[in-house]
Amino acid sequence: MSKKIRLGILGGGGNSLVGILHRIAAKMHDKYDIVGGVFSRDWDSNIEFANEIGISSRRVYADYEIMIKEELKLPQDQRMQAVSILTPNFLHYSMAKRLLENNFSVICEKPLTTTYEEAKELRSLVDKSGLIFAVTYTYTGYPMIRKMREMISQDAIGEVQKVDAQYYQGWINPIIHSSETRMDTWRLDPKKSGVSCCIGDIGTHAFDMLEYLTQLTIDKVLADLNYLYDDNKMDIDGSILIRCTNGVKGIIRASQIATGENNNFAVMIYGKKGGLKWEQENPRVLYFMQEGKEVQILKSENIDTDLLTEDAKLPPGHPDEIFDAMANIYKGAAKAINHQEYDPGEFPAIIDGVRGMNFIESVVESHKKGNVWITIDNK
Amino acid sequence: MSKKIRLGILGGGGNSLVGILHRIAAKMHDKYDIVGGVFSRDWDSNIEFANEIGISSRRVYADYEIMIKEELKLPQDQRMQAVSILTPNFLHYSMAKRLLENNFSVICEKPLTTTYEEAKELRSLVDKSGLIFAVTYTYTGYPMIRKMREMISQDAIGEVQKVDAQYYQGWINPIIHSSETRMDTWRLDPKKSGVSCCIGDIGTHAFDMLEYLTQLTIDKVLADLNYLYDDNKMDIDGSILIRCTNGVKGIIRASQIATGENNNFAVMIYGKKGGLKWEQENPRVLYFMQEGKEVQILKSENIDTDLLTEDAKLPPGHPDEIFDAMANIYKGAAKAINHQEYDPGEFPAIIDGVRGMNFIESVVESHKKGNVWITIDNK
Amino acid sequence: MSKKIRLGILGGGGNSLVGILHRIAAKMHDKYDIVGGVFSRDWDSNIEFANEIGISSRRVYADYEIMIKEELKLPQDQRMQAVSILTPNFLHYSMAKRLLENNFSVICEKPLTTTYEEAKELRSLVDKSGLIFAVTYTYTGYPMIRKMREMISQDAIGEVQKVDAQYYQGWINPIIHSSETRMDTWRLDPKKSGVSCCIGDIGTHAFDMLEYLTQLTIDKVLADLNYLYDDNKMDIDGSILIRCTNGVKGIIRASQIATGENNNFAVMIYGKKGGLKWEQENPRVLYFMQEGKEVQILKSENIDTDLLTEDAKLPPGHPDEIFDAMANIYKGAAKAINHQEYDPGEFPAIIDGVRGMNFIESVVESHKKGNVWITIDNK
Amino acid sequence: MSKKIRLGILGGGGNSLVGILHRIAAKMHDKYDIVGGVFSRDWDSNIEFANEIGISSRRVYADYEIMIKEELKLPQDQRMQAVSILTPNFLHYSMAKRLLENNFSVICEKPLTTTYEEAKELRSLVDKSGLIFAVTYTYTGYPMIRKMREMISQDAIGEVQKVDAQYYQGWINPIIHSSETRMDTWRLDPKKSGVSCCIGDIGTHAFDMLEYLTQLTIDKVLADLNYLYDDNKMDIDGSILIRCTNGVKGIIRASQIATGENNNFAVMIYGKKGGLKWEQENPRVLYFMQEGKEVQILKSENIDTDLLTEDAKLPPGHPDEIFDAMANIYKGAAKAINHQEYDPGEFPAIIDGVRGMNFIESVVESHKKGNVWITIDNK
Repeated sequence: MSKKIRLGILGGGGNSLVGILHRIAAKMHDKYDIVGGVFSRDWDSNIEFANEIGISSRRVYADYEIMIKEELKLPQDQRMQAVSILTPNFLHYSMAKRLLENNFSVICEKPLTTTYEEAKELRSLVDKSGLIFAVTYTYTGYPMIRKMREMISQDAIGEVQKVDAQYYQGWINPIIHSSETRMDTWRLDPKKSGVSCCIGDIGTHAFDMLEYLTQLTIDKVLADLNYLYDDNKMDIDGSILIRCTNGVKGIIRASQIATGENNNFAVMIYGKKGGLKWEQENPRVLYFMQEGKEVQILKSENIDTDLLTEDAKLPPGHPDEIFDAMANIYKGAAKAINHQEYDPGEFPAIIDGVRGMNFIESVVESHKKGNVWITIDNK
Repeated sequence: MSKKIRLGILGGGGNSLVGILHRIAAKMHDKYDIVGGVFSRDWDSNIEFANEIGISSRRVYADYEIMIKEELKLPQDQRMQAVSILTPNFLHYSMAKRLLENNFSVICEKPLTTTYEEAKELRSLVDKSGLIFAVTYTYTGYPMIRKMREMISQDAIGEVQKVDAQYYQGWINPIIHSSETRMDTWRLDPKKSGVSCCIGDIGTHAFDMLEYLTQLTIDKVLADLNYLYDDNKMDIDGSILIRCTNGVKGIIRASQIATGENNNFAVMIYGKKGGLKWEQENPRVLYFMQEGKEVQILKSENIDTDLLTEDAKLPPGHPDEIFDAMANIYKGAAKAINHQEYDPGEFPAIIDGVRGMNFIESVVESHKKGNVWITIDNK
Repeated sequence: MSKKIRLGILGGGGNSLVGILHRIAAKMHDKYDIVGGVFSRDWDSNIEFANEIGISSRRVYADYEIMIKEELKLPQDQRMQAVSILTPNFLHYSMAKRLLENNFSVICEKPLTTTYEEAKELRSLVDKSGLIFAVTYTYTGYPMIRKMREMISQDAIGEVQKVDAQYYQGWINPIIHSSETRMDTWRLDPKKSGVSCCIGDIGTHAFDMLEYLTQLTIDKVLADLNYLYDDNKMDIDGSILIRCTNGVKGIIRASQIATGENNNFAVMIYGKKGGLKWEQENPRVLYFMQEGKEVQILKSENIDTDLLTEDAKLPPGHPDEIFDAMANIYKGAAKAINHQEYDPGEFPAIIDGVRGMNFIESVVESHKKGNVWITIDNK
Repeated sequence: MSKKIRLGILGGGGNSLVGILHRIAAKMHDKYDIVGGVFSRDWDSNIEFANEIGISSRRVYADYEIMIKEELKLPQDQRMQAVSILTPNFLHYSMAKRLLENNFSVICEKPLTTTYEEAKELRSLVDKSGLIFAVTYTYTGYPMIRKMREMISQDAIGEVQKVDAQYYQGWINPIIHSSETRMDTWRLDPKKSGVSCCIGDIGTHAFDMLEYLTQLTIDKVLADLNYLYDDNKMDIDGSILIRCTNGVKGIIRASQIATGENNNFAVMIYGKKGGLKWEQENPRVLYFMQEGKEVQILKSENIDTDLLTEDAKLPPGHPDEIFDAMANIYKGAAKAINHQEYDPGEFPAIIDGVRGMNFIESVVESHKKGNVWITIDNK
């Protein structure tokens, strides 16, 4: 009866915030039914949580391999069509690989994988299969970010001449100064988190955002990372000089030792005619500066953009936010899953995930080689 | 299998914003299953919309009387337990009355009814039946509003000595200046909207908010309303001097001719030790001023309040908002429906709806009698 | 040699903030020479202070009567042309009266006098003599306020339909709750401060500002004042419903018990086409809202208004402020003193001082008669 | 009679903003008498302007050499004690040199000179003579900046671990895109402006500010500058990675092509216990973030710092600003001139000017050598 997409979920059980965010986003535009998944390694918790969120015990599985096997036994019109991967980073690759091989579309949390190599492998699976693969760089789903992209592409600020993205948090400060706590944190353990902490976790958002907004390709980075302590193997702060293929210069700044900051992600794009500024902590407002004119405050309740055409979700004058952002990404992915086609502005796809991994590895390489320019390969 | 509350919905079909808001809020804490309802007077639209949001055609009904009759035929463990009323104001009373008479709990949009008399009648039905009745003064569900209430009750600002609430919108400005358009607007038609436009629609939120935050009882009003044109029968702006039973003075200001404003709802509460300020257009921030100290900015990602205990829904550093607000009200109502008991801070109940109607009628009376004090009866 | 106006000053010695403000403002546009005055009742302090600020001992006087007598002995081209009165309120009247009678122009701090009767008497002296009399409602000198007045007069927001002025401070809170301290405060002593504390001190600024900005005449007030304690004879908070001669309604809100507020003076003017908002604590920014358009942020460094024509004093991108505001008033007064003519937008004149006193007395009368409408006489 | 410092001024005539700023600042704390100077190369304008600002024609001079010669003829108690240099950059060096050689203290606009060599030469003259030399990096005079320095030195945020300074303007955007206008702009002409446009003009402020606030010494820079066009010889934008002697890393970002920005200078300092943020466009507010606590808003009207001890100049609740900032620098210099001693936090001295020149040249060298690390010599 329902024409909604049948969605499975891996991870995100209990009070996991990312779990809540994905479930609400999936429901928000009434495009998905959450039909099953794996929510916990502990069987009782797994079942209990599934029931709590209204999922039949029949489709709660012990692990993702069993899920794939059992779902494949179901008739095609009952089988999961897409699966969201919300597990720790190091599990993304193997789960995504197996799902793609078995014909499930994937919605995967970022970072896509732990290495660029793995990312490229997933990409070739996506390319071969024709399946949909979304990477939830959630912030590009914000209505004002979509408006900003559209304005830039429609020449509102003229040719882009400078870009600057900041992503400052302070959460690692209470951890980093004791050698005991820093040894105990999985994000600071290369085995669990790959080659980078700060750049992998948040610098990559800034990178993706700049490319999303400007539709430019960043192809060179020169990074100075910060580890604070010799026994700390993972960057917790970094400044990255960047250059785009068309010569535009800019900067990405990311930190997890900006003590007192929560989630201070901000982007500034300046062109020949004007500039645009946005801050994640006040996401429904966009500052539009034009040469020789008054600054304009664009508010999300008044905007109209092709990237949000189907439904406006919020009453005028009410704050937008992260649910809307994630829901827009889910909506874009739903359209792609249903129609096998999409506008690249509607959701971050496999290529964005691949580029993110490439960026992370290039940044670390730049730093380790003594703060030199490294070229990101743009294949 | 599911332990969720079985919820029916009256109204809110199509692109109705209030419909979207209630559906998301109901799903957000995984406490409700939307099982059926009446979404449109047109049968095809009704069915189509229901299917679109994943509701079985079997429980889509032609009107609320049929819904009540058919639901009563279902076994108790399948029957709707609660019904949300999202229809135009003038239908609230008759729907709520019939639902209460047939043992359904009710979640009703504000204003509760079109007259104080009707409101009192509903209240006596609630009192007799022991059913749960929530009135969705949504704004009291905002995390920072709940924090603010808690702080005031815990003496953070000392004894309250002055209150001020502002609710400024400009939406009626393009309508009000032409006699043609103002005649055509249902909100300006006393037959459809009751005795008041501006005070009934938004002044009542300000009134409810001040009582919610301070736990004081406002018992006197002196109002000067504004109609702008002689042939306009409904207030579109008003300033209301208020007094509480304990002597505290204050003011409520509401306008729909504050040209350029979207939804500028703000409250300021001052006590002997400090003050608190909140603005709906930036709802995740609370300004806490203390005598002789620096102003503090409380952010919703960091707060902890008993009125939000069960689940924090938002990742740190991400903006809260209206979904959260409405979801908190639904969560409070769910607790009450399941356990037949609740903390009065958890959701606005029938008494708040009744007081709202009393406030509206008292304000209009004050104005019409020449801006004199009118006592709100506090039974 | 110098063509500057020879200015005398009464009061403002020592660390008096109002003294510093007037002296800097007088110097800022290079239009005045401060040549003498009375700075302290104590002779040694008087002389010492004068020398410190570079004034010759010869023109330091023991009191204002001696000053007038001695200055009259000087040749006309050396004699003071204007005198600034910065003494406590209750001395304004007698000083201003004697100065006007002896042919000195006057720049007087607000409130003009302690009663409306005295104010009218000064006005008739001004009218007879043709002398210049400025009342330093400083806030009307802010560049953005002048811009706002000009925009309103040039129809930027259309016909005004609603006005709202807020002036919230918290300074009296630590004083008011102890009967001892409240008895000891000169502002709460009717003998020293006249009939009103809060309305006389700050409400009057709000009144003057609304008339300045809109060029409307407020002619009716209905006030509810707050004294908090029975033995407190002076209002410390009040809300005042207002009506203008053309029927426009609005509100003035003033408080000295808004605990935690410093000097939160804000005005909102709404018209048929748009709205304008300004806040004293962020004075270089003006919010311009237009029906159906983006909000515009006007910044003082970019403005151009006839009321500021002669010289822009601030580098682009640097904050304006209170010195600029006062200096603009001094500049306007200088133009009037030199040419005996002026634009009423350039500085607040005797009529504004008179109206202020009338407003204060009307407000107190409205409150004392039971919150009824009182007409301000507009002669 | 007056004990004020006798000040001469070179430049700043007519409507020059920098002239107005220095004159008001010099007068603000009643510490200086402006007794003469050279205000224009045109003799008539020179005299006329001097008279307009109340300076006797006797001490208006045709050029600075004549001024020095004539002033030396006056008795020591009438002779200028200090001279402010407000002329174009390329004249600073020769004027300052001659003034120092003839025993005048100097207050000089930044940048100190056009080359590091010249700057060092001036420094050695200062060192030999014992004269006072202030460089007006005005922004370090802001009350909140002084408070910020004091807080950092008193361990409010713990050991500094990251610094970030941004100085974004857009003024060169309308000039830079036409080869005609960019050839005609003196700031883009190396002969008139030295080796750098953007870094020399504003990057140097950011550098000075970081050192002022943290009392750390920046000793390494890696810069990527932006010229936009091949025929443009001067940087108009740049990002600079920095390292301090104690290992702290950070970044300086400066731009004159940030289209739409006025004077967006901002600094963020993060330590082990908290962070501090300040923005020049809202200079009276300081954001103080502490690990695990609410953000505090410090306002200048409430602050108390040793670096502002003598006089508070502003009434509570009124905006501070650039006059105050410059006046604080003049006040500090006055104290030094009178007593030949000073706290290095009170005004920027010759060493700061020298370091600024060194910074500029190091940045340009880093860029030209291919974005490599250059060490600033810290002698």
